[in-house]
Amino acid sequence: MSEKHSALVERMIGGDRTALAKLITIVEGSRRDASGILKMLGPASPGSYALGITGPPGGGKSTLLNRLTSALRGKDKKVGIIAVDPTSPFTGGAVLGDRIRMLGHSGDSSVFIRSLGSRGTHGGLSRATGDIMKLYGAFGMDYAVIETVGVGQTELDIIELADTVCVVLVPEAGDGIQAMKAGLMEIGDIFVVNKADRQGAQRLSVELRHSLSLVKSPGSWEPPVLLTTADRGEGTEELLEAIEKHADFQTNSGELKVKRNRRLEKEFLHILMDTVTDEIESSFEEPELSEILIRVKSGELNPYEGADVAIKKMFRKP
Amino acid sequence: MSEKHSALVERMIGGDRTALAKLITIVEGSRRDASGILKMLGPASPGSYALGITGPPGGGKSTLLNRLTSALRGKDKKVGIIAVDPTSPFTGGAVLGDRIRMLGHSGDSSVFIRSLGSRGTHGGLSRATGDIMKLYGAFGMDYAVIETVGVGQTELDIIELADTVCVVLVPEAGDGIQAMKAGLMEIGDIFVVNKADRQGAQRLSVELRHSLSLVKSPGSWEPPVLLTTADRGEGTEELLEAIEKHADFQTNSGELKVKRNRRLEKEFLHILMDTVTDEIESSFEEPELSEILIRVKSGELNPYEGADVAIKKMFRKP
Repeated sequence: MSEKHSALVERMIGGDRTALAKLITIVEGSRRDASGILKMLGPASPGSYALGITGPPGGGKSTLLNRLTSALRGKDKKVGIIAVDPTSPFTGGAVLGDRIRMLGHSGDSSVFIRSLGSRGTHGGLSRATGDIMKLYGAFGMDYAVIETVGVGQTELDIIELADTVCVVLVPEAGDGIQAMKAGLMEIGDIFVVNKADRQGAQRLSVELRHSLSLVKSPGSWEPPVLLTTADRGEGTEELLEAIEKHADFQTNSGELKVKRNRRLEKEFLHILMDTVTDEIESSFEEPELSEILIRVKSGELNPYEGADVAIKKMFRKP
Repeated sequence: MSEKHSALVERMIGGDRTALAKLITIVEGSRRDASGILKMLGPASPGSYALGITGPPGGGKSTLLNRLTSALRGKDKKVGIIAVDPTSPFTGGAVLGDRIRMLGHSGDSSVFIRSLGSRGTHGGLSRATGDIMKLYGAFGMDYAVIETVGVGQTELDIIELADTVCVVLVPEAGDGIQAMKAGLMEIGDIFVVNKADRQGAQRLSVELRHSLSLVKSPGSWEPPVLLTTADRGEGTEELLEAIEKHADFQTNSGELKVKRNRRLEKEFLHILMDTVTDEIESSFEEPELSEILIRVKSGELNPYEGADVAIKKMFRKP
């Protein structure tokens, strides 16, 4: 198996898109395989700059991303996109349409798009997204762009993988207030009021600037609020400039290194917890632990007492 | 602390609602305290019959539950309600209003209502819901009713705590198809088409009966499809009859015992995982493990290799 993987890695690093696609599928589907493949990539790769695009549904994120991709291609940057939809069972349907709109870039060998849903992703969407970012880095992508559909906790976990987070809002339905409730004000490095040709765009941008000014701390990055009309391509160049400015700011201040270190720590803890879960599940095949389960079922131990006994048996104590 | 808890438990078992409210808050906020309190309840309590009410938002679940509570009170049954809203940050607001509608029962000492959100719940909503159910049982509630707002995975995990699950749909917006997508067809023991005075109610109930007939297996419970108009109180008695019929069916077939055993097993595994998470977090304060983190950050180990090393250090191996 791992011989086949190393051949794929070699081809991928050589620029083979089919190998990249296959590796993404392998990495997405198996944490164990991902481990082996990441080891092959080595620590050398400088990695892509990770850009996150998030915001409530219906904000035109995909259209904006499409425009942004064109602007990046204009500067000869290679772009790998990961579109994540944790598909609450009551959404769905929109994503495929959104992806198809990206077809403007489908003939371009320097743009790669992958959609990720919760199904078939072993060990969480955030784990898979992080690993695909590493593949994009090794492939030579200058930018790894993460687009999340929706705004729940899973999406926030994923968007934390980004070096720069763009929050996209629209002048409608109290998006500003919603953004604050959802904790988007805290995570955004750049705020975009898209569909700026609609009524209320100016007002929303003033509101946003006001809320941002309240949390401003001296010496830190001041998130700009930009107006775009992605449908007509207006404001894309300014957005790209803001992204580059934020990247420079973080590099110079040393913040980027701190952020990426923190990301690595979180990644490690997530993977550790996933592995521990597997470990525990297999432990229950051993008689010593399945006996605890029987005592819990009989009511002899309450579930908490059972957990304490199990942990004493499983864990080494110093 | 535990002396104070045992005094509360004593008062609660004696019928003191204030003590019940306090214990719920303690159990919700701390897994550790919950463990001690559950032990005090003892294994003796027969427990309440657990009824789950779920379905897409806007189906009138709260109104229906209100009517059902009146019907149960008419039979002199005591009812404890847990209304769970895992609050996606972009919902919210509706729940308080829904709760206020329950005020018809606010003067009734045999009805107790508690709303649960993700904030302030230590160790997951499902864990807290299960523990509050046990408190209701010890208080002498005949029914513990779990109402979930929304239909994501968290809600499905919670509703699995119920002995009987009612799925509430409305004749609108393709609720039938949505229910199938969300896995509600598999978990429902009773289906309710609420707002049955609206157009399409008959058609939805025919659709539901048809889908249910496709998965019917001989000897097993056949989920009925009921029509209700909760606003006007129509169909509530029939719903209560169906619930009682399902309870009898499960008791006689032995299914109830199997179901509750399975529930206990899941509960135990959840609590075990939560406790392990705490254990791991505190392990990283020890030099042996924090050193692994440093090696991961330096790139010497990838996160997967780091996890493997950490697990070898933490776990006893047979």
